[in-house]
Amino acid sequence: MAKRNALYAQSGGVTPVINATAAAVIEAARAHPDRIGSVYAARDGILGALEERLIDTSSLSADDLAALSHTPGGVFGSCRYKLKGLDDNRREYERLVEVLKAHDIGYFFYNGGNDSADTALKISEMARKLDVPLQCIAVPKTIDNDLAVTDNCPGFGSVAKYVAVSILEASLDVMSMASSSTKVFILEVMGRHAGWIAAAGGLACRAAGDPPQVILFPEVPFDEKAFCSRVRESVETNGYCSVVVSEGLRNAAGEFLADAGTTDAFGHKQLGGVAPVVAELVRRELGYKYHWAVSDYLQRSARHVASATDVEHAGAVGRMAVALALNGGSGVMPVIRRTADDPYAWTIESAPLEEIANKEKKMPEDFISEDGFGITPACRRYLEPLIRGEDYPPYGDDGLPRYLRPNFVYLDRKLPDFSV
Amino acid sequence: MAKRNALYAQSGGVTPVINATAAAVIEAARAHPDRIGSVYAARDGILGALEERLIDTSSLSADDLAALSHTPGGVFGSCRYKLKGLDDNRREYERLVEVLKAHDIGYFFYNGGNDSADTALKISEMARKLDVPLQCIAVPKTIDNDLAVTDNCPGFGSVAKYVAVSILEASLDVMSMASSSTKVFILEVMGRHAGWIAAAGGLACRAAGDPPQVILFPEVPFDEKAFCSRVRESVETNGYCSVVVSEGLRNAAGEFLADAGTTDAFGHKQLGGVAPVVAELVRRELGYKYHWAVSDYLQRSARHVASATDVEHAGAVGRMAVALALNGGSGVMPVIRRTADDPYAWTIESAPLEEIANKEKKMPEDFISEDGFGITPACRRYLEPLIRGEDYPPYGDDGLPRYLRPNFVYLDRKLPDFSV
Repeated sequence: MAKRNALYAQSGGVTPVINATAAAVIEAARAHPDRIGSVYAARDGILGALEERLIDTSSLSADDLAALSHTPGGVFGSCRYKLKGLDDNRREYERLVEVLKAHDIGYFFYNGGNDSADTALKISEMARKLDVPLQCIAVPKTIDNDLAVTDNCPGFGSVAKYVAVSILEASLDVMSMASSSTKVFILEVMGRHAGWIAAAGGLACRAAGDPPQVILFPEVPFDEKAFCSRVRESVETNGYCSVVVSEGLRNAAGEFLADAGTTDAFGHKQLGGVAPVVAELVRRELGYKYHWAVSDYLQRSARHVASATDVEHAGAVGRMAVALALNGGSGVMPVIRRTADDPYAWTIESAPLEEIANKEKKMPEDFISEDGFGITPACRRYLEPLIRGEDYPPYGDDGLPRYLRPNFVYLDRKLPDFSV
Repeated sequence: MAKRNALYAQSGGVTPVINATAAAVIEAARAHPDRIGSVYAARDGILGALEERLIDTSSLSADDLAALSHTPGGVFGSCRYKLKGLDDNRREYERLVEVLKAHDIGYFFYNGGNDSADTALKISEMARKLDVPLQCIAVPKTIDNDLAVTDNCPGFGSVAKYVAVSILEASLDVMSMASSSTKVFILEVMGRHAGWIAAAGGLACRAAGDPPQVILFPEVPFDEKAFCSRVRESVETNGYCSVVVSEGLRNAAGEFLADAGTTDAFGHKQLGGVAPVVAELVRRELGYKYHWAVSDYLQRSARHVASATDVEHAGAVGRMAVALALNGGSGVMPVIRRTADDPYAWTIESAPLEEIANKEKKMPEDFISEDGFGITPACRRYLEPLIRGEDYPPYGDDGLPRYLRPNFVYLDRKLPDFSV
């Protein structure tokens, strides 16, 4: 079989471990020099692929790849741009084919969530229809943990660990001061439609009375009265109340409590700032002194407190993506299958993108406790292995993690300009 | 000399390493069984001392103390309550003397900031005036790094490390997405009047163009126009802009940009939420998509990313406090003296509380760059050693740090009720 080049691209919101997947793809591809020539990376995701802004990863040394695997963010750049269907937007697909041909690319690895799985599926269908020789593999990544089929999504475990550790630590703080000062602490976390990240906060709660005493899920319409009564009960019993609130919290009418009023390129609403809304309610209805935090990007870039399990998953899906491609696969995604909870065991399998693209995995109903403010033992059984283990980046003498900031080598462009 | 008991109390806002000081005081006291009997701890700071809510730390095993030394928050509870002068409030001082007498306490260690140094000074003056045999030692602690005399304050180094690591990580995230999505990231950090914590963000910036490109200090009146122009410049040059803003940011009229309108027990205003104010300005004036985070309690409880230097300082001041007390000292505080920058070296000395109480150390003017948006090499030279080294807590199989949550043994009360 002829030797072809590979293209890797990152898509959508980045994660603390997406670069671990990138490093694994590059390393695995380098292990097959008879089949795979160079590994290129698209600058800024699919946009860079269309615009022929391609990085030659050959300039990255083995040490660089090791550093890449513990660097948060998306080192090659990412974007939120979703290709339309082949019939609606033939121009972009034709351009993509030109770019692939121009650089002799036979393998395309697209590292993203369900929107990106959809794009990868369309590209693989396009390749079949146009008889373009291409192995197109979607590689899973999303802190939202909402991809179908896979047991969990690389990126989520580390965010879950960050949230569980953070709410545990902040609760020890508020608990210290509660007798005469702040009584309520509210931590806002990400999760537009599914409460996976908020649920992770529940891992800090091992016994009745442990923090967080209240979790506000996007799946549970916000009931002001029940919430206030639960907060008061916790303050009266435990002396304080620790709250995790999902950015996607909605009222009974289905409206987001915090809505910045802007939308991203996928048409998703940009949310933020539900914590101060909930805090103001606590002040008004209960009169307690409060503090609130919004972790925002901190939660999804906190490689310094990554889950070792998550880092392993991120590497494994990258390696499997290359194996699937070399095996002639296309229009598929490596997914994680859990084979046992205790001790936790997992394998990587292949799943067709038709089962994943544009689908959103909700939390099972039996993961949220009956009162709507906590997680169930089933949820804990599912989540706990995902935050297990520590995987620290190396630090420099300056007290900071040694993250990779490479100077990239770009391929010479061979095609005319193109803009999306 | 007769054997007396010791009392330890925590005061004011807690830190990631105040319990390391507590553990050091208890361990050091245990090493002198000929001079010091039991070590008691006041529940909730000076309030517990007045109300005779005293914990017997003898029940803590050596393993407990090891765990205590890596547990954030204030395990014995803290408070923001400041004793008035002896002439204005004889009742409280008389009560304190009764409690100390009732439990044969000859050593009092008060672990706090400049308000607490003032309380410790008054107690030691009271003891002298009333001829009460007492060694009263203030032990430094504050994330604000604003204590006089000492080179730096235990607690600050770890918060500084958290802020520097967090802005570095979040900047790698925004940099990944900036070409087509979020261009400005804003991190709000603590610091009412002094920009020490905000300055720590500057440690992530090693070369021109590195993040954070803008730091907003409480010392520099906010200039909207200069800020917007700097943000635009960074977006045009670097593709994005990363901002650290101090909660204490004020406008030219000296008003806080974010003012929750409530005050704490010391009469300090409760601040919070300047990040969304700055973000809204970015949207309105520049039209860039933004994200913002408020780290609030997360920054001062993040023991998981503590500075090893800070942990060492916290232990050393605790041990020195016991040594000073055994040496007959009172009305003093162990302070950190820097003897060299490179390689960093330090010793612990004793300083009289008169030089520390109620004073607030500002950042030197030459620590802020001329344009007001960054730190100078002198500031970096000062700050960098303070975040150096990692000191991780042990983690359990549940993926979470093993923090101490002891069941305390309280002393039987010997006195009638008392309320402040």
